[in-house]
Amino acid sequence: MMNSKTYFVNSKTYSAPTEPVRDTVGAIMWDRPVVLPPLARINEAIERLRQVGLPHPSMNSCYVVAEDYTLLGVLGLRDMLLTRGGVRVEAAMTRPFATIQPEDDQELAAQLMEAFDLLELPVVDKDNRLVGVVTADEAMGVLQEEATEDMEMMAAITPSERPYLDTPVWRIFASRIPWLLLLMLSAAFTGAIIQHFEAALAAQVALTAFIPMLMDTGGNCGSQSSVTVIRGLSLGQIRFGDWLRVLWKELRVGLLCGASLAAVNLLRLTLLTAVSPAVAATVSLTLAVTVLAAKLVGCCLPILAKRLGLDPAVMASPFITTLVDAVSLLAYFGMASLLLGV
Amino acid sequence: MMNSKTYFVNSKTYSAPTEPVRDTVGAIMWDRPVVLPPLARINEAIERLRQVGLPHPSMNSCYVVAEDYTLLGVLGLRDMLLTRGGVRVEAAMTRPFATIQPEDDQELAAQLMEAFDLLELPVVDKDNRLVGVVTADEAMGVLQEEATEDMEMMAAITPSERPYLDTPVWRIFASRIPWLLLLMLSAAFTGAIIQHFEAALAAQVALTAFIPMLMDTGGNCGSQSSVTVIRGLSLGQIRFGDWLRVLWKELRVGLLCGASLAAVNLLRLTLLTAVSPAVAATVSLTLAVTVLAAKLVGCCLPILAKRLGLDPAVMASPFITTLVDAVSLLAYFGMASLLLGV
Repeated sequence: MMNSKTYFVNSKTYSAPTEPVRDTVGAIMWDRPVVLPPLARINEAIERLRQVGLPHPSMNSCYVVAEDYTLLGVLGLRDMLLTRGGVRVEAAMTRPFATIQPEDDQELAAQLMEAFDLLELPVVDKDNRLVGVVTADEAMGVLQEEATEDMEMMAAITPSERPYLDTPVWRIFASRIPWLLLLMLSAAFTGAIIQHFEAALAAQVALTAFIPMLMDTGGNCGSQSSVTVIRGLSLGQIRFGDWLRVLWKELRVGLLCGASLAAVNLLRLTLLTAVSPAVAATVSLTLAVTVLAAKLVGCCLPILAKRLGLDPAVMASPFITTLVDAVSLLAYFGMASLLLGV
Repeated sequence: MMNSKTYFVNSKTYSAPTEPVRDTVGAIMWDRPVVLPPLARINEAIERLRQVGLPHPSMNSCYVVAEDYTLLGVLGLRDMLLTRGGVRVEAAMTRPFATIQPEDDQELAAQLMEAFDLLELPVVDKDNRLVGVVTADEAMGVLQEEATEDMEMMAAITPSERPYLDTPVWRIFASRIPWLLLLMLSAAFTGAIIQHFEAALAAQVALTAFIPMLMDTGGNCGSQSSVTVIRGLSLGQIRFGDWLRVLWKELRVGLLCGASLAAVNLLRLTLLTAVSPAVAATVSLTLAVTVLAAKLVGCCLPILAKRLGLDPAVMASPFITTLVDAVSLLAYFGMASLLLGV
């Protein structure tokens, strides 16, 4: 299910992320908030509270609704305490700072509450009728869960909500093996590239020694970019519309990183090893290309995933590693044929 | 600065993580909570509130203190509203569910509040005198920041608190390049292993094609384990004392994953490629060893880091990848000399 609705937040408009909604607001909201009619007086409201009580321990507001439950305003317990008893509820209440709908993603609710320091967020249906309230203690739980889920997906694990020590071995196995299989089989692709250039490697066995370094550095550069972008998307600091700015930034960071690493590598190979200058140049140039490619792939894939309605975190390091490995090897053998004539 | 104090939480005792304290509770607490004397009556307390107001928008409790500010109890606004005016504050107040000290880590405060659904957490000095209160809106911010920091460290980035798009290119570069350099130079180690076995590779060039697959799978297995353990440590679901349980669990998961991946790989190489059975066996056995080693290294390193007072997240994927690469290559060449006689 996709949604890209907009929310009215203190005269600013917020869009729900276009992501599949797994855990909805409806599942975590408290559906029996204390409601008050707008024309009641504060001392009548307090009397009502004394009768019905405040069943939810984390709620410190009452909600002012019309007869059809249309949400009119919020009245904090603090306002009830500090306002004279004869004042009408509608004169003491404030407008809700933000509202959300029950079918929205829990993560959006938690992000709004975190960003705007809200302890309660009213949930309304399409006709603005109050159906529940999300409390800050639920929001804290959602923030923790979502962060855990993102980390698990970044590490190629199917997210689970059970604590590690309570999860049976076969379940941990089941959450990890599909990704490992998929990634192992996709690495057959890099194997095929190496096989294709077997003759070149046989002629220049020295080249083999640098394959792990090239691939690891590419993987590290790619996950630096992807994790930065994934977290930025998830915190709402990066939006799809920013893709050109992100690309331009990563291009420059990639050039700086690529140039620095290539220079250090060239120095090390020339001064500290017996490698021929041509091989040193081949490795260093490939390194620069790999770093740049890794940075660009690393920032683009999560943004693209977001655009396609997928969770950006699934596009993290392992997939990027496989892709960058292929680019890196092709660049390596290309450079080798150019500079070494193999 | 290290601390391993214990906290009194509803008759349970909690230990602060033995981690360097970067961001203290003192920096986020609100230091002017509304205080009440224990012998005041509820209607006097309400009168006092009307005079002083409730300056912090996210606070819905008053704190009952003795003359020397020793914390005696908490009185929520809800209790003030629902209790008869003549009752004394000390009869209506509740004991604080948990307290924390100003020099403690913000993360511990946020974790306690999240775990026990607390909207406010009183901060006391060594003599139990009230010095401030942490509110849920601050706790939500801390949870988000700490998760971001962990993700950045897992991806070998020096954490920064600035949003990505507002961070200048050179600063992003500076937060990434030291780790890339360190990891690139440590990969020289794996390069040296390959160089050492150059003769074996020259004799069996087919072996080279499987190096990327072995190394990537090892890296993926290692980060699955390390990220799971790092997050478990950070959520307080895993403690240092659990290391043996974690190791035993990862050992079994590692055996299952290793056996499955080796079996699939053996089938693929035998049925779909022209690789000799001896090479297929060498690659598959190395794969099983690599997976097991990666799982064990991946779970041990973060726990060890925690024990040494380091942040477990710095021990994540990249370091583990380098270590597992070395183990994997040594196993590979060992198997090759055993099974292929190279």
